[in-house]
Amino acid sequence: MKAIILFGHGARDSRWREPFDRLASLWHEQYPQTPVELAFLEMMQPSLEDAVAALSARGVSDLTIVPVFFGQGGHLRNDFPVLLEECRGKFPKITLSATPAVGEDLAVLQAIIDFGARAL
Amino acid sequence: MKAIILFGHGARDSRWREPFDRLASLWHEQYPQTPVELAFLEMMQPSLEDAVAALSARGVSDLTIVPVFFGQGGHLRNDFPVLLEECRGKFPKITLSATPAVGEDLAVLQAIIDFGARAL
Repeated sequence: MKAIILFGHGARDSRWREPFDRLASLWHEQYPQTPVELAFLEMMQPSLEDAVAALSARGVSDLTIVPVFFGQGGHLRNDFPVLLEECRGKFPKITLSATPAVGEDLAVLQAIIDFGARAL
Repeated sequence: MKAIILFGHGARDSRWREPFDRLASLWHEQYPQTPVELAFLEMMQPSLEDAVAALSARGVSDLTIVPVFFGQGGHLRNDFPVLLEECRGKFPKITLSATPAVGEDLAVLQAIIDFGARAL
């Protein structure tokens, strides 16, 4: 079974995660056959490892992690690969793959442009 | 004259800003009559004030700031309003307005969902 993890930075203010909760709800509505979990790099739970563990317990065998970040800086170039390798070591039965950051996707950028244009 | 500022967090790694540079290029291609500047909260230049100053020098009278953030946490709820008020004080001839964070926009979230779905 396939599943997806939407991986964000995390923040001290709990309201910061509202768009992430909305993303998980949208995913669940549109792809109910494909489990989704959120995970956060810091300051919020669950961690990436906890999210992988939760999906492992549900029998997931093939997991795609989508970094919900704009830019690919130190967090995605340095911290994230380490976490990913740790998860691969701890969950050898799960195939773990990762996409580029969502900010690399032209359609995501175009949606931001459209949002700005509507606001003028 | 109207203009737009795309306001991001900033990061130590200069490659982090690539999607922001791409956003500015997309805007410039699609709305060449409406000047665009990037601005960053920390670790990258220009600051919000420097971006407003640059647009003021070009004769902009009506400026919309789009926070290119997912969540509305401490940066947008606490830091950003202070910067915005400082800019209003320093540039009284410019009407400064701000949108919610782009992560509040359903079309932006849907584009992220679509990106994830294509990756499975």
